[in-house]
Amino acid sequence: MLPSPEAADVVALARDLARRELAPRAAPAEEAGLFPREIFRMLGRAGLLGLPYPPDLGGGGQPYEVYLQVLEEIAAVWASVAVGVGVHTLSCFPLYACGSDVQRKQLPELLEGDLLGGYALAEEHAGPDAAALSTLAVPDGDGYRITGTKTWITHGGEADFYVLFARTAGGPGGLTCFLIEGRMDGLAFGTPERKMALTASTTARLHFDGAWVPVDWRISDEGCGYPIAAAALDAGRLGIAACAVGLAQGALDHAVRYAARRGQFGRPVIANQGIAFLLADMAAAVETARAGYLEAARRKDRGLPYARQASIAKLAATDAAMKVTADAVQVLGGEGYTRDHPVERYMREAKVMQIFEGANQVQRMVIGRHLARDAGYAC
Amino acid sequence: MLPSPEAADVVALARDLARRELAPRAAPAEEAGLFPREIFRMLGRAGLLGLPYPPDLGGGGQPYEVYLQVLEEIAAVWASVAVGVGVHTLSCFPLYACGSDVQRKQLPELLEGDLLGGYALAEEHAGPDAAALSTLAVPDGDGYRITGTKTWITHGGEADFYVLFARTAGGPGGLTCFLIEGRMDGLAFGTPERKMALTASTTARLHFDGAWVPVDWRISDEGCGYPIAAAALDAGRLGIAACAVGLAQGALDHAVRYAARRGQFGRPVIANQGIAFLLADMAAAVETARAGYLEAARRKDRGLPYARQASIAKLAATDAAMKVTADAVQVLGGEGYTRDHPVERYMREAKVMQIFEGANQVQRMVIGRHLARDAGYAC
Amino acid sequence: MLPSPEAADVVALARDLARRELAPRAAPAEEAGLFPREIFRMLGRAGLLGLPYPPDLGGGGQPYEVYLQVLEEIAAVWASVAVGVGVHTLSCFPLYACGSDVQRKQLPELLEGDLLGGYALAEEHAGPDAAALSTLAVPDGDGYRITGTKTWITHGGEADFYVLFARTAGGPGGLTCFLIEGRMDGLAFGTPERKMALTASTTARLHFDGAWVPVDWRISDEGCGYPIAAAALDAGRLGIAACAVGLAQGALDHAVRYAARRGQFGRPVIANQGIAFLLADMAAAVETARAGYLEAARRKDRGLPYARQASIAKLAATDAAMKVTADAVQVLGGEGYTRDHPVERYMREAKVMQIFEGANQVQRMVIGRHLARDAGYAC
Amino acid sequence: MLPSPEAADVVALARDLARRELAPRAAPAEEAGLFPREIFRMLGRAGLLGLPYPPDLGGGGQPYEVYLQVLEEIAAVWASVAVGVGVHTLSCFPLYACGSDVQRKQLPELLEGDLLGGYALAEEHAGPDAAALSTLAVPDGDGYRITGTKTWITHGGEADFYVLFARTAGGPGGLTCFLIEGRMDGLAFGTPERKMALTASTTARLHFDGAWVPVDWRISDEGCGYPIAAAALDAGRLGIAACAVGLAQGALDHAVRYAARRGQFGRPVIANQGIAFLLADMAAAVETARAGYLEAARRKDRGLPYARQASIAKLAATDAAMKVTADAVQVLGGEGYTRDHPVERYMREAKVMQIFEGANQVQRMVIGRHLARDAGYAC
Repeated sequence: MLPSPEAADVVALARDLARRELAPRAAPAEEAGLFPREIFRMLGRAGLLGLPYPPDLGGGGQPYEVYLQVLEEIAAVWASVAVGVGVHTLSCFPLYACGSDVQRKQLPELLEGDLLGGYALAEEHAGPDAAALSTLAVPDGDGYRITGTKTWITHGGEADFYVLFARTAGGPGGLTCFLIEGRMDGLAFGTPERKMALTASTTARLHFDGAWVPVDWRISDEGCGYPIAAAALDAGRLGIAACAVGLAQGALDHAVRYAARRGQFGRPVIANQGIAFLLADMAAAVETARAGYLEAARRKDRGLPYARQASIAKLAATDAAMKVTADAVQVLGGEGYTRDHPVERYMREAKVMQIFEGANQVQRMVIGRHLARDAGYAC
Repeated sequence: MLPSPEAADVVALARDLARRELAPRAAPAEEAGLFPREIFRMLGRAGLLGLPYPPDLGGGGQPYEVYLQVLEEIAAVWASVAVGVGVHTLSCFPLYACGSDVQRKQLPELLEGDLLGGYALAEEHAGPDAAALSTLAVPDGDGYRITGTKTWITHGGEADFYVLFARTAGGPGGLTCFLIEGRMDGLAFGTPERKMALTASTTARLHFDGAWVPVDWRISDEGCGYPIAAAALDAGRLGIAACAVGLAQGALDHAVRYAARRGQFGRPVIANQGIAFLLADMAAAVETARAGYLEAARRKDRGLPYARQASIAKLAATDAAMKVTADAVQVLGGEGYTRDHPVERYMREAKVMQIFEGANQVQRMVIGRHLARDAGYAC
Repeated sequence: MLPSPEAADVVALARDLARRELAPRAAPAEEAGLFPREIFRMLGRAGLLGLPYPPDLGGGGQPYEVYLQVLEEIAAVWASVAVGVGVHTLSCFPLYACGSDVQRKQLPELLEGDLLGGYALAEEHAGPDAAALSTLAVPDGDGYRITGTKTWITHGGEADFYVLFARTAGGPGGLTCFLIEGRMDGLAFGTPERKMALTASTTARLHFDGAWVPVDWRISDEGCGYPIAAAALDAGRLGIAACAVGLAQGALDHAVRYAARRGQFGRPVIANQGIAFLLADMAAAVETARAGYLEAARRKDRGLPYARQASIAKLAATDAAMKVTADAVQVLGGEGYTRDHPVERYMREAKVMQIFEGANQVQRMVIGRHLARDAGYAC
Repeated sequence: MLPSPEAADVVALARDLARRELAPRAAPAEEAGLFPREIFRMLGRAGLLGLPYPPDLGGGGQPYEVYLQVLEEIAAVWASVAVGVGVHTLSCFPLYACGSDVQRKQLPELLEGDLLGGYALAEEHAGPDAAALSTLAVPDGDGYRITGTKTWITHGGEADFYVLFARTAGGPGGLTCFLIEGRMDGLAFGTPERKMALTASTTARLHFDGAWVPVDWRISDEGCGYPIAAAALDAGRLGIAACAVGLAQGALDHAVRYAARRGQFGRPVIANQGIAFLLADMAAAVETARAGYLEAARRKDRGLPYARQASIAKLAATDAAMKVTADAVQVLGGEGYTRDHPVERYMREAKVMQIFEGANQVQRMVIGRHLARDAGYAC
C-alpha cells in the first residue's frame, strides 16, 4: 500500500522505467561486467536518485516507505542498479544531515543525478565494529591527509564523490566524516572484485596514500562521524531489505509465469500442487518480508526508533530472497539453470544480500543485543 | 504501530487485563479443562468483545488492525480465550452484515458480552469446500427444520447462540445463514474433543435432528449464505494470524527472560551466540509475521481486496508460531519441557493454529490459485 | 539392513512385542502417568534388556547397530519404554566396562531384567560440563558418604539401582563412579517432573543427604569416573537417536496410513501432491536419520572413534523427529490434534529428544569443536 | 567406512589425483568453459572409469558403495568431472547388463577410459515419463533410422559413443536401447547450454535426422529398453547423491579452514558459536546425507530393492548440498562471494544437482508412490 496518489505515481514511473529501459539492458551488461553509468543519469533525470530528500534540496520529498518501494521495482529487474541507487542515496545522507549550509548547497547536484556517490566505510578485519576502523585522517595545513584502505566499496573507481569515514582520534568517538572527490591525488583503486553476480556493479578497494582533503569538505566536527555512520547503517539495511524483496518478487513473477504456461500432458505445471504449494510458500515469503520492511520504514518515517526492526527486515528479506530465488530456478528446472532466463542470475544476486550491509550473522547479533537489553541484560 | 491514541488505550487495556486477570487463571483452567465463561463476561464488560463493530450497535468502533492487536495481547497469555474472542466476533458478523433491522437490534446484547457466540460452518469430509456441506434446512411452517452434524465447533455446547450455515438448495448457491439459540429441541452436542491443548476451549459437534428455527432468524435471503461465509473466512484467518503472533510473542518473551536471567559460569545464557542467534531468529519470525497480518488488516480496513493477503498472513504467522514456540521450549531446556513454565503449553497450542480456519495446506491452495489466476491460468 | 539372521530375529521379536503387547498399553499409561514396571520385566524375560552385552554375562551378544534397531521398534509405539530401555542399558555399562570381577558377577541380574537401573549423572547448572558437578562422595569408614542433588533422573524413585557419579576430588579428574541401591538411607526423591509427555516415564531428582555407600560398590578407582561417563554419553546419544528415529517412523506410518485411507471426493488425500510430497519429505528425513545413526553405530561396533558421529546422529535424528511428528499431526488435521490418534503424543514426545542427553545446542558445540580441532584450532 | 583395504586404496588414489591433478585445473577450465577431455583419459588410465564393473571386462570390480565414494572425492574438487564419470559409468551399463557377447567384447575399451560415453535418454516435455519419449527408430535394411531430439545430454558433442533410447513401438514397452557412435551422419549437436555452472561439462542437444544404426548395435531385443533405463536411473540417482555429498564436503572443508584461520580480535571466527553452530549443522547435513546414500548403495550391492532409497538419497543429498554450499559462502562472507575462493562455484554447481537425474519434485513423486503403494493405495 502506498500513502498518497503522488507516491503511486512515483512507483509507477519507476516500474515503467524498470521494465522498459532497464530490463533489456540488464543481462548483457551483467555478462559483460560493464558499469551502466548512463542508467543512473536516466534515473536522475527521472527524479529517482534523491527520493527521500526534501524537494528544496533537489530531492523527491517522499517518505522512506515510498523510496524503498521504488528500489524494489528496480531490483525486480536489475539488482546492480537498485543497489547502486541505494548506495548513492546513502552517500548523500551525511551532507544532508550534518553538512554546513555551504556544503548543502551542493546537494541538488548530487540528488539530481549528475553526480554519482560511493560510501567508503568498510575495512578489512573491521567487520561491523566501527571502533576497529584504521584509516587515518591527519591534519595537514588547511586540510587532512588520508591514509588507509577501504574495502568492498560499491562504485569504487566509478563514483564522482565518496563519503569517507576516517579516524582523527582513537575509539568510536574518533571517527570523522569527509566528502571527497572521485579522482584525486593519493587515491588509487584496486582491481574490481570478481563477484559471483552484481558484475555490472563495480566493487573495489580504495587505497588512500596521503590523499589531501580540504577542511571545507569535512562534514561535521571532528569525531562526530560515528552517529552519522550508525544512522546511515540502519537506513542502508532497509535499502538492502527492499532490494532483496524486489529481487525475490522478480524471481517469483518469472516462476509463476513459467509454471502457468509450460505444461505436461495438457495442463500447466502450476496445476500440480507440488509446484503450486512451492509457489505459494514463495509468495508468502515475499509478501511477508515486504510487510516487514515497510513496517520498519514507517517507524522511521514517523521518527520512531527502528534499529531492531531494520536489522530484522534485512535478515528476513535477504533470507527470503535466497530461498525464493533458488526455488524459482527449481520451478523452471533445467531451463532455469541456463542464462536463457534471468532466474539463475537472480539466485546469484540474492546471495550477496545476505552478506553485505552487515552479514546476517551481524544482524542476529544486533537483534540479540536488543532482546537482551530489553530483558535487563546488557551484552 | 497503532493508528490513534484511543487505539493505544484499547490495546493497553487489553494487555493489562491479560496480564493481571487472565494470566494467573490460564494454567489451572487448561489443566482442568474448564471453560472460562466468566472471563468472556469480564472482557465484554471491558468493551473487548465487539471491537471491530460500530459503537451505535454496541461495538468498539475500532479498525481491524486494532482489534487484531487486542487478540494478540490476549493470545500472549491465554490462547483459548483469544480464539474464543475471535470466534465470538466472527459469529456476530452475519447479523451485522446482512441482518434485518429487527435482527440487528439484538447486536448490542451480543457485542457487549452478555451472550457468547459460536460459528457452525464446518462438517466432516467437507474440508474447505462449501459446496460439500450437507446439513439441511427444510421449510416447515413459519420456519425450517435443521438436520445434520457440524464438527469441530468452538464453544460447542457452551455458546448462547450459533451462526449456522445450512443448505436450502444444492451447490454453493444453496447455503443459507441462520442465527440459532444455544439450547433448543433437536440440538444435541457431542462429547468435547480431547485435544492436545486449548483444553479450556470446548470443541464439540453439533447434532441437529430436526431442530426447528423460525424464519425470523434466517439471516439474509435463502441461498445467500456463501458470500457471508467467505467474507467471514478471510476475516477469521486474520484473527488466527493475530492469535498465532500473540502466542509466539508470549513464548519469545518467556524465552528471552529466561535466557537473560539463567546462567552458567557467571553469565546468562543469552550471552552465548548459540542462544542469542536462536532468539534473534525467533524475534525476526514474530515481528515479520506481525507486519504481515497488519498489512492485510490495513487493506481490509481500507476496503481493498485482502483474501490472498489473509491466507498468507495465516500461513506465515502459524508456521512462525509453531517454530517459535518449539524453540522457546528449547531455550528453557528441561525446565521448558515441564508444566512449571507455560512454554510447553504454548507449543501445544501453536500446533492447532496450523490446522484450523483452513489447514495451512488449504491456505497454500488458495494462494496458489491467486497466483495462477493473476498469471492467466484459472485452476 | 541387519548383519545376521539372528539379528533379524531379535528385531522381529521386538517388533512383535511392541505391536502386540506395548502398543495397546501405551496411551492409557501415558494419560494416567503410571510407570509400566511390568513391561520392563516382560522385555527382560524376552532377552531385550541387555542386548549389547556378552551372552556369558547375561546379555544378548548383539552389536550396537542391532540393539539400536530394537530401541527403534519399541520407540515406534511407546517412547517412554524405549527411553527406559536405553537408560537401563547405559546404567549397566560402568559395571561391565570397569567393574571388578566380584562386581561383574551381579551383571546377569541386571541384564536379564529382574532389576531396573537409573543413571545419576546430571545436576542443575552443570549442563554438559562434568567439571561443574558438585555432588560429593566423602570417605567414611569402609565407604563414602554422598551429599548432593541429581536432577532429571529417568526412573528416579522407580529404579532398583543407580549408577552414580560423585566427586571425590576437584576437577574432571575427581569424578568417581558408584553403584547404589534404589532404596537406601539418606536418599530421597523429588516430586516427579510434570512433563509435556513421557508421563509414564518417571523423572525425578535424587537428593543425597549423607547416604552411605560401601567401598565395594565403588566402580573403578577414585577419579576414574570421567572417562566412563564420557564413553557412556556417546553411546547414550546413539540410543536417543534410535528412539527419535523410531518415534518418527511410528508417526510417519500413522500419517501414511491415514492419508491412504481418508479421502475427499472419492480419492485418498495421499493422491494430492500437497500431502504426498510432505510425506515424501518425512520419509526422507526418517530414513536418512536412520542411516546416520547406523553408520555411527557400525563405527562403534568396529572400534572406530565415533564421538562426532554420535553427536551428529543425535542432532539429526531428533531434529528430524520433531519435524516429522509435527507434520504427522498436520497430515491428520483436526483428528491428529486429538487423543483419538497417537500422533499428538508422538509430537509431544519428540520435543524432549532435542533436549536430553545433551541439548542439541550442546551437540552443535561438540561437533563444532571436532571441526575446529581437525582444522588445527583447539577451542 | 570402506569394506576392504583395497577399497581404501582406491579411494585414497582418487583423493590424491583429485587434489593433486584436478583441483588446480578446475577453476580455469570452468571459467573458460573448456571440456577437460584429457582428465578423463587420466582417470581411465588410473582405473577410475569403470569401477563398479567386473575386472574381466576391464572394470575395477568394486562394489557400488566404493565407486560412489570415489565420485565423492572427485566432486569435492571438480563437480563437472565427477558428473562426467557418473554419466560415463551409466552409459556402459546397458552394454554390460544386456549386451550380446559380441557387444560386450567392446566393454574393456569403454571401461578403461579410451572412449568417453554419453547417455541419451531425456527429451523435452517428456520429463520423468518414459512413455512420453518420442524419438523414433524405424527399421531400415540391416538397421534403424533414428529421428528425434534428445535434450540436456551431458558430453553432448564430446562423447565417443552414446547409449540411445528410441521408440520402436508405442508405450513404455516400445523403447529400445542402442549404442551409437559419437560422430555419424544424421546426428547434429545443438549449441551447448549456457549454464550457471558446470560450464566445463558440455551439455547439448542431440538432433537425429534419419541417422542410421546397424542392428548389431541394438542392445537387447526391441521393446526391452524401459527396464534398462529404469535400472540405470536408480543407479544414476545414487551417483548424483554421491556427487552432491562430495561437493558439500568440499565446501564445508573450505569453510571450516577459513573459519579456523581468519579471525577478529585475536581469535578465529570458529570460536564464535554463531559460526561454529552453522558449521556443525553443515557437517551434520553432509555426514547424514553420506550415510543415506551409502545405505542405499549397500542395498544395491546386496541385491536388495533400493529404488525408494535411491530417490531419498538423491533428494536428501542434493538439498543438503544446496544448503551447505550456500552457507559455506556465508561463512567466508564477502570473500566467499568472489572467484578468489571456489565456494561460490560450489554453490552454483549444487543447484543443478537438485534438478537433473529427476528434479527433486520427481523424487518426491517417486517416494510418495512407494509410500502409498506400501499402504495399499496405488497411485
